[in-house]
Amino acid sequence: MTKPYSSRSDNLFGPMFGTPAVAERTSAAAWLQAMLDFESALAAAQAEAGVIPLPAAEEIARHCRVELFDVDSVAERAVSSATPVIALVRDLTALLDDDAKPHVHKGATSQDVIDTAASLIARDVLGLIIDDLRAAADECARLAEQHRDTVMIARSLLQQALPTTFGTRCAGWLTSLDESVTALERIRSERLAVQFGGAAGTLAALGSDGVQVLALLATELGLAEPVVPWHTDRTRIAELAGALGTAAGVLGKIALDVELHAQTEVGELADGQAGGSSAMPHKQNPVSAVLVTAATRRVPGLVATLLSAMPQEYERAAGAWQSEWEPLTELLRLVAAASAQTRRLLAGLRVHPEKMAANLDLTRGLVMAESAAGRLMGSLGRTEAQELVAGLCRRAVQEGTSLRAELLADQQVRAVLSEDEVVAATEPAGYLGSAPAFIDRALTAHAELEKR
Amino acid sequence: MTKPYSSRSDNLFGPMFGTPAVAERTSAAAWLQAMLDFESALAAAQAEAGVIPLPAAEEIARHCRVELFDVDSVAERAVSSATPVIALVRDLTALLDDDAKPHVHKGATSQDVIDTAASLIARDVLGLIIDDLRAAADECARLAEQHRDTVMIARSLLQQALPTTFGTRCAGWLTSLDESVTALERIRSERLAVQFGGAAGTLAALGSDGVQVLALLATELGLAEPVVPWHTDRTRIAELAGALGTAAGVLGKIALDVELHAQTEVGELADGQAGGSSAMPHKQNPVSAVLVTAATRRVPGLVATLLSAMPQEYERAAGAWQSEWEPLTELLRLVAAASAQTRRLLAGLRVHPEKMAANLDLTRGLVMAESAAGRLMGSLGRTEAQELVAGLCRRAVQEGTSLRAELLADQQVRAVLSEDEVVAATEPAGYLGSAPAFIDRALTAHAELEKR
Amino acid sequence: MTKPYSSRSDNLFGPMFGTPAVAERTSAAAWLQAMLDFESALAAAQAEAGVIPLPAAEEIARHCRVELFDVDSVAERAVSSATPVIALVRDLTALLDDDAKPHVHKGATSQDVIDTAASLIARDVLGLIIDDLRAAADECARLAEQHRDTVMIARSLLQQALPTTFGTRCAGWLTSLDESVTALERIRSERLAVQFGGAAGTLAALGSDGVQVLALLATELGLAEPVVPWHTDRTRIAELAGALGTAAGVLGKIALDVELHAQTEVGELADGQAGGSSAMPHKQNPVSAVLVTAATRRVPGLVATLLSAMPQEYERAAGAWQSEWEPLTELLRLVAAASAQTRRLLAGLRVHPEKMAANLDLTRGLVMAESAAGRLMGSLGRTEAQELVAGLCRRAVQEGTSLRAELLADQQVRAVLSEDEVVAATEPAGYLGSAPAFIDRALTAHAELEKR
Amino acid sequence: MTKPYSSRSDNLFGPMFGTPAVAERTSAAAWLQAMLDFESALAAAQAEAGVIPLPAAEEIARHCRVELFDVDSVAERAVSSATPVIALVRDLTALLDDDAKPHVHKGATSQDVIDTAASLIARDVLGLIIDDLRAAADECARLAEQHRDTVMIARSLLQQALPTTFGTRCAGWLTSLDESVTALERIRSERLAVQFGGAAGTLAALGSDGVQVLALLATELGLAEPVVPWHTDRTRIAELAGALGTAAGVLGKIALDVELHAQTEVGELADGQAGGSSAMPHKQNPVSAVLVTAATRRVPGLVATLLSAMPQEYERAAGAWQSEWEPLTELLRLVAAASAQTRRLLAGLRVHPEKMAANLDLTRGLVMAESAAGRLMGSLGRTEAQELVAGLCRRAVQEGTSLRAELLADQQVRAVLSEDEVVAATEPAGYLGSAPAFIDRALTAHAELEKR
Repeated sequence: MTKPYSSRSDNLFGPMFGTPAVAERTSAAAWLQAMLDFESALAAAQAEAGVIPLPAAEEIARHCRVELFDVDSVAERAVSSATPVIALVRDLTALLDDDAKPHVHKGATSQDVIDTAASLIARDVLGLIIDDLRAAADECARLAEQHRDTVMIARSLLQQALPTTFGTRCAGWLTSLDESVTALERIRSERLAVQFGGAAGTLAALGSDGVQVLALLATELGLAEPVVPWHTDRTRIAELAGALGTAAGVLGKIALDVELHAQTEVGELADGQAGGSSAMPHKQNPVSAVLVTAATRRVPGLVATLLSAMPQEYERAAGAWQSEWEPLTELLRLVAAASAQTRRLLAGLRVHPEKMAANLDLTRGLVMAESAAGRLMGSLGRTEAQELVAGLCRRAVQEGTSLRAELLADQQVRAVLSEDEVVAATEPAGYLGSAPAFIDRALTAHAELEKR
Repeated sequence: MTKPYSSRSDNLFGPMFGTPAVAERTSAAAWLQAMLDFESALAAAQAEAGVIPLPAAEEIARHCRVELFDVDSVAERAVSSATPVIALVRDLTALLDDDAKPHVHKGATSQDVIDTAASLIARDVLGLIIDDLRAAADECARLAEQHRDTVMIARSLLQQALPTTFGTRCAGWLTSLDESVTALERIRSERLAVQFGGAAGTLAALGSDGVQVLALLATELGLAEPVVPWHTDRTRIAELAGALGTAAGVLGKIALDVELHAQTEVGELADGQAGGSSAMPHKQNPVSAVLVTAATRRVPGLVATLLSAMPQEYERAAGAWQSEWEPLTELLRLVAAASAQTRRLLAGLRVHPEKMAANLDLTRGLVMAESAAGRLMGSLGRTEAQELVAGLCRRAVQEGTSLRAELLADQQVRAVLSEDEVVAATEPAGYLGSAPAFIDRALTAHAELEKR
Repeated sequence: MTKPYSSRSDNLFGPMFGTPAVAERTSAAAWLQAMLDFESALAAAQAEAGVIPLPAAEEIARHCRVELFDVDSVAERAVSSATPVIALVRDLTALLDDDAKPHVHKGATSQDVIDTAASLIARDVLGLIIDDLRAAADECARLAEQHRDTVMIARSLLQQALPTTFGTRCAGWLTSLDESVTALERIRSERLAVQFGGAAGTLAALGSDGVQVLALLATELGLAEPVVPWHTDRTRIAELAGALGTAAGVLGKIALDVELHAQTEVGELADGQAGGSSAMPHKQNPVSAVLVTAATRRVPGLVATLLSAMPQEYERAAGAWQSEWEPLTELLRLVAAASAQTRRLLAGLRVHPEKMAANLDLTRGLVMAESAAGRLMGSLGRTEAQELVAGLCRRAVQEGTSLRAELLADQQVRAVLSEDEVVAATEPAGYLGSAPAFIDRALTAHAELEKR
Repeated sequence: MTKPYSSRSDNLFGPMFGTPAVAERTSAAAWLQAMLDFESALAAAQAEAGVIPLPAAEEIARHCRVELFDVDSVAERAVSSATPVIALVRDLTALLDDDAKPHVHKGATSQDVIDTAASLIARDVLGLIIDDLRAAADECARLAEQHRDTVMIARSLLQQALPTTFGTRCAGWLTSLDESVTALERIRSERLAVQFGGAAGTLAALGSDGVQVLALLATELGLAEPVVPWHTDRTRIAELAGALGTAAGVLGKIALDVELHAQTEVGELADGQAGGSSAMPHKQNPVSAVLVTAATRRVPGLVATLLSAMPQEYERAAGAWQSEWEPLTELLRLVAAASAQTRRLLAGLRVHPEKMAANLDLTRGLVMAESAAGRLMGSLGRTEAQELVAGLCRRAVQEGTSLRAELLADQQVRAVLSEDEVVAATEPAGYLGSAPAFIDRALTAHAELEKR
């Protein structure tokens, strides 16, 4: 029996780079509904301002439901005018009773509809993203608490450096996620605005009522009211793009860390979603992290496209504005997918403290050279202490012993430090400086953000 | 009566930025079919090499038809392994008789399937693109011939400069389109390659037969045979992206020119698809050009994303490779849409030679100052000739006369040039230099490309 | 006599894309000085915390002057360690008396120095940028006031649309500049932070004093104190980049508008710096606008590079961080150059109201069709009014008359509208809707920003 | 004694991201010299064509030496006209005897000079780049030969996968470098062209001699002769940028691999330039690789900027063209630096085969599961063989034994495979498939490229 070919989507890779929730909120139907929400709210605002009759506004509101429209037809008819609004308004008008017909879309231009719809869609998707980022931050807070004392090696330039704790790393992730939440919440509440200017940005067709309708419309939709129409001032879009781009970088960093820690040779973390393979049973593919990496790597190019589109001609642009639509949708989709995936990744993250401990020993204590030299400096002076320890490190490598063993065996050292002091100087857990304090600071800041 | 909501696509803006032909060739089903084409060809190659039994290859080939698969299910199951291949191979295996089952996908890795499928899809879409670019070039050749003597003003920094012809501009467009065709044809025939290396790039599972199967597989699919597997050498993808990016720039330049010439104040060209407006009946929106501009502006960001993805870890990448899939598909889609739209734009382009002539006169002949000075240099010397003409230009502006009138009235000029000579010196059509020669060169080069 | 070849700079194009002020503040010497400022402030903070002796801190402070260093030597020695800090600290130490030597750079890592120096340099350059943006905004406010009643045509998709005023356009520029100022001031005061974490981000070498020193160091330098070290949390850099990218887009839009208005065929604005040409005396090259365009077009790519660099490995990165240094410097330089150039451009902008008026007439009144139809709707209904006016427009075009003339001659119209009413309906200055209100709103918002 | 502050460069980071050779070839002086080379060659070509007197050409040639010019002055005067050419031609003219003065720069426009100079500079720098890439490829060929039998683990998604050899990896690097050489050589010999079109692209000032002078000029400079002027057809620049971007990706991949192999936990490779640290004596910072990574990560953004600049207005652009100058110079500089650095990296690369062998054992033979299952499939069938081996793998992990030990102890296995066969099945060197063949193919292809 053969199953019939079927696809609801034109994009084989879609589910990997978009959650069902974001797919729904950025679909063709969602865009049309947001555009209809503009038309409905405009009519309501105009009725309140006395510009159109209330029954007309009610008739319009009743028909501003995407279920009443043929989405594909609107999408296809958009090609001939480079905007879906003309077809949409035509179809909406056709649904109305004759009394309401003249009152649809009054004084508005195509860009008013699309820009406002973009604000509405961004608000919805930012809601998803912020929820997931907050939840991811909570997971980081949990991990930071839990692994406050889980000592591991810090690495710089991919080389082992000095000890730290896994909790400190989680505190770093936490702070960066909290910064993204703060930035995106500001954009969401302050910068997503209604657009309403009419064809020339003057609201000429409304005479002197334009400004009042603008204010009512903003209230109606719960969006910010701009000082002037922003048809060719794309600051709001650029700021949204920048904040999404920054959040993507934060998520990409977490995923990169997980991939590196999950390397077979490192083995300190494992992706809870890790995919196996019958042919390669030892593989623990960090699937979630890979999808986050793949999604977030694409974000800077999209941000650049949106920034490049900022210089727009005169009152309304010939191409640059139209170039925003798909990249903005894409940007929202990718960051939402990466946020959701990171939340899952952190929630299911498997931590291997014993492997962290083992890796700390890989250099036979050489990572403690700074610590040891520090203890000797008081008595020997900085340069001499460093040179002494460097020599013992070389010997430990040559002889296959450890720095601790060499320190214990060295007379110059022992003249200054007791056995206990040598042991303490070479104990990673004893050389963590402000790591616990940084964890506390990150948790405190997070708790304050939670309260808001 | 209300129509039920329906949408075949998740993207309201899809039809504006993708033709039906390219949508079909980059759909989820098209990707799956290309992946199945790989599996089918692999089995055929392995049968020919004696690695698997011929009946198994035939059984596999019979089932490598996308109609037999649930595309959405494959797409959704891709999430858990960050690749659609595992689900696809599982579903394909399930369709086969027991004898064939063990022979599916032998020695191949997920990336072999997807990279080869990408080559196949790129080949198909490049076919569309090259056809449209060739047709657009033919339109330019027609326009270059037709407007060989249509004098217009050349502009630099958006200022009127000196005369040229519209035919010369079309010759420039033509040459750039021909360059894009040449580059894309080279990529299509030489650089789109089969991928086949197995999990480690060694084809270990095929013992010593790997290289032979690779060659047969390349022949089977009509793709280039790489020297070594290119799992983490993304040169081929980068070259494809670069060539598409260059073509997009060429198309964007033509669209920009049309938009500028079509300005109300310039009025020299009109987009044949120009959309009107009942409220603004004078508007001739250059719809096709705007869509080309909007599509092509997004291309550099996608090219950058693909170039950024080149550094891939070890034998196979954790994220960078996976980040290629959607941007590459998008790039093909956008350039295909822009090529088709440009072809239409050029085919329907309305040229207004009378407006070109009128614009030539806007400066009252000042654009002929260089020409006039050139005629006077022989007798007066370069500096003196330039200063004399500059003075006459200033006077023409002040008095509201023309440069020609001032030249005719000036004694120093008339001591050197006859009335006919002054008229000739200020006749735009007489100051075109190598413009006709350049047109001929472009047409000749185009005719040679046509022959290939 | 031949002048000897000489160059203070390695970049022929430097002066076009960077002012002397920004060149100075981002020079090699400026970077080194900023790095020395970190070392000096660190010593002061540590002396205050009792970590090092006060005389050592004073000795260090005395020598943290770039004049004492060989900048080129430091730059060249940076190659062998991929950081200039090692050479710098060595040279600084060599300058000190023996008592102070051991106390230099205590507990700090190379990245602490460079990141903090970047914050200091950004603060300086943002100072320049904000000053120029504020001054440019003031010019826009002046122009908005001055041209409150200067009617001109609004254009969409490069087609004449409806009337607006030049003051309204200036109000739009003003608002966007004010938005950039607001965003950059927030970054400057809140987000530029000190970096101090030591090699592992734990400040291990300072034992438990790290957090106190961090706070004192932030105070000393007047930079924000981060919650935790941000060695691999690049949010601050990304936010800075995003805000600069947005400002660049705002400046690019103003420059684009000036270039378009300055076209020979439009002639409504002229760049006060317009460069002439002896061969082409009519040319008024919009030089300042061109340089702004050229500078700002390069910004999105730099922002993308900085966003791409966000995912950094573990505690400190292998390459991504190092990739930030030049692009960040470049970004500051380009936006500073564009800001200064835009300020000059706006201050010297020549406005030609008579050309604006003439261009309004180009379509023989067709741009007033919406206005005319609006006046007829009350009596004739929307559809009939629109169709009637559309017909009269077509006739005006065919007959070479004007819409006003056709309206006056039409019986159906005259049955409804008096001659005065027809004249009013076709008078651009009478169809400006909320344009004056928008100007007031922008000026009010600007005045409030000024007060801050 | 304090050394006086001095700097020959304005860029502290310059030496890290540019070799002295490329700094010299892209300096302000080098750009001016290339522009003078254009002027000199133009005069020579025009003398040969009889357009100007030979002595004038000789006088011009004598003075087209950068030593005679004040580079900084030219650079600074460029600001007022957005081009350095006007100042340069003025200074050049001033140096000439009166007879030659009128014959300088005849028929040329500013863009002719700069675009041709860009081609000359690109030719020089591509020369450096190609030499370094060829040398780097030679190193890879040497390493591929040398490590033909050095078995190491292949990794996918940063997880250990199956065995390969280090020679195979080097063969992959080799092939990618050879591809870059091929592409850049094609650009260098075929696509770098002279620019000569005059202000309108018509060479009007040369009457009908333009085309002949163009051909002679191309010959004189050894650059390609374009079909038509390419003032606003930026295909050549885009192709150059694309090829440089691709080469950067190839170099970035090699550097990334070295960084990963050099991780403390992996330890298979070390950068010969590795920088140590007294505080952290175990660190082997992969300095060269880090600089290559830092340089190449910035390339995609620059390529995108150049692609974005392709749509240029009419005959000559207002901003987009001017935006090319610095990014193109930067692109050449960064790829040259990365090429030189990679050559050094590969020449000094330290390979640790013993660590590669040790890492192969990390999973206790689990990486040989596919191999073992393959040997059992003939007798047991695919599924059963895979399940059996998977079970033994799980047991090896639980018991802390090895796959080999479990295979040897399993009765079902031993019924089918002898001890020798089990040992062979779990011996990495015996499961390399086509690895040796791929090395041979890469070396053969490289040898053929060498011959060209």
